[in-house]
Amino acid sequence: MTAPLDLDALSCLVQPLDDDASTATLERLAGLARPAGALGRLDELTVWLAGAQGAAPPRDPERARVVVFAGDHGVAAAGVSAYPPEATARMVALVQAGGSGMDALARAAGATVRLVDLSVDADTPADVAGHKVRRGSGRIDRVDALTLAEAEAAFRAGVAIADEEVDGGADLLVPADLAVAGTTVAAVLVAALTGTEPVKVVGRGSGIDDRTWMRKVVAIRDALRRARPFTGDPVALLAVGGGADVAAMTGFLVQAAVRRTPVLLDGVVSAAAALLARAAAPAATAWWVAAHRSAEPAHRIALENLDLAPVLDLGIRAGGGTGALTVLPLLRAAVRSCAETATAEAAGLRRVQPAR
Amino acid sequence: MTAPLDLDALSCLVQPLDDDASTATLERLAGLARPAGALGRLDELTVWLAGAQGAAPPRDPERARVVVFAGDHGVAAAGVSAYPPEATARMVALVQAGGSGMDALARAAGATVRLVDLSVDADTPADVAGHKVRRGSGRIDRVDALTLAEAEAAFRAGVAIADEEVDGGADLLVPADLAVAGTTVAAVLVAALTGTEPVKVVGRGSGIDDRTWMRKVVAIRDALRRARPFTGDPVALLAVGGGADVAAMTGFLVQAAVRRTPVLLDGVVSAAAALLARAAAPAATAWWVAAHRSAEPAHRIALENLDLAPVLDLGIRAGGGTGALTVLPLLRAAVRSCAETATAEAAGLRRVQPAR
Repeated sequence: MTAPLDLDALSCLVQPLDDDASTATLERLAGLARPAGALGRLDELTVWLAGAQGAAPPRDPERARVVVFAGDHGVAAAGVSAYPPEATARMVALVQAGGSGMDALARAAGATVRLVDLSVDADTPADVAGHKVRRGSGRIDRVDALTLAEAEAAFRAGVAIADEEVDGGADLLVPADLAVAGTTVAAVLVAALTGTEPVKVVGRGSGIDDRTWMRKVVAIRDALRRARPFTGDPVALLAVGGGADVAAMTGFLVQAAVRRTPVLLDGVVSAAAALLARAAAPAATAWWVAAHRSAEPAHRIALENLDLAPVLDLGIRAGGGTGALTVLPLLRAAVRSCAETATAEAAGLRRVQPAR
Repeated sequence: MTAPLDLDALSCLVQPLDDDASTATLERLAGLARPAGALGRLDELTVWLAGAQGAAPPRDPERARVVVFAGDHGVAAAGVSAYPPEATARMVALVQAGGSGMDALARAAGATVRLVDLSVDADTPADVAGHKVRRGSGRIDRVDALTLAEAEAAFRAGVAIADEEVDGGADLLVPADLAVAGTTVAAVLVAALTGTEPVKVVGRGSGIDDRTWMRKVVAIRDALRRARPFTGDPVALLAVGGGADVAAMTGFLVQAAVRRTPVLLDGVVSAAAALLARAAAPAATAWWVAAHRSAEPAHRIALENLDLAPVLDLGIRAGGGTGALTVLPLLRAAVRSCAETATAEAAGLRRVQPAR
């Protein structure tokens, strides 16, 4: 029998970033043969990565890994998505074949993609089903998504997946979501954890029309009524108003921080998981950067609550992970620029006034 | 003897983008196994590139070329920069050695860099001095930058450089600037061409302090007084208030459009050149995308006047070209995503409501 999940013990394992490495990298940047703060936000990312790696200047994250958490949600039956529930299984097959939009971006960014099935309502190949908790999470506007034991199991699966990835050599992690009705579940969790009323968190998700949007508002309102009493307990909240995929992503985010591995967050589902992971382990937020601001209102609310400012705002509407894969090439370029640019001294470049 | 420069004849050679290729690419994007408008602004770039290439879907621009237009400006003697005038020659040497911040970004983006010396106030190697017009442009707050003949020669040099690059196989061009006091000259040109008062165009350039900023305002005011009478004639304006490097960049931008080659604009100097190039050949603007919004006020004013919305806003303060090299990997990734993502039909993915 497994020992009960001890979030406090896990939380204590999260260390802060390495300030010395960040400071040394800041100093290096200030001495390069280019204007002070030359790369703006990208220089900030370089400094963050240095702190996460404990290395100055930081190393190019050439083993970045996208982990796609796939699952089905009973609330899809409420008609809240532009896609039918069976689309999840289709998309799982597409990602496995390397044919999704995210796969192309990952190849372009030099990242690899792993898909894990936590709760897809279909049989999936053995290599993705190793952490499967159940087929489909419950319809959260009417019943619980998971039992408490299942929520714990899913959280632990996320911890195990983070361990597998870091042990396998991943040097930067991107959690991605693959689920029909995923934004509905995320909106419920964000509303519950930030005290926001339903209508303010409801977005267009997969590109839904007005009637679907109204059904989504109703489903979120009903689910929120069930979820609100459990906002003080992350695992209980995941059981009542979440799902196995989000629970696993939450454990993954905590354990990535425990393992001192930087994370690019992207999309509203990862933001919901980040709110839960922060509730479990507050110090973990230092290990995350928000990649892209999506159009989902709940995403904006969650990021503000997390005090994370996204790097990009390109109007990307594809699933979570996609925006992170647009930030990754910029981060890698900034790291190379920090490492490869000559110092002003070596270039014989002096300023007539000190750098500002 | 050379025939006089005939801008009207040049302007007539600029063709529109290929609408059929853009439309076909839009249709392809709408049919992919991902939400409608999935990549937002990046999908818009893909559609633009398709129109520029006349190819649907567009090809990955794997032979992107940065052309650095280097020159010195007499107005640097007014003490308007954080760097002394001799810094231009130092930076030329640094770029030639591949050690500048831009070089590292170019390598990361898979682009190559060529430097051309139009008017550096120093001797440079023969392979960069082939198009040199003179040593240093005149101090525009007191005298003309160039004679009319020199301005024409510099403009023609830019045309020739664009031809050389396109003939050499470049499939996307990024004009970059390398000059001490370059933002001062650009601010004068932007103010002259947009009817803006001096104090509104003056930025912090290389990171200048308040006293330097005040000297810069005075220099711009004096130069603008000399330049305003010539706003109707691009070449005359370049002679009075510009410089050989900006004049060459102007010719380069016009000829890139003539040669049907897409351009990523970046930084206030390229925006000033773009205003001049538009005055010479209005249809050329379709061939340009603005990469990054810099902190220079004149840049913002010029882009609004050109009706070009920058893709990124990352607070980058390095020289022009740098921001374009952060957009390039995103453009390349978006193009790959368009080409490599499966169609919804092939993936067996149906929507329960039409794409919005």
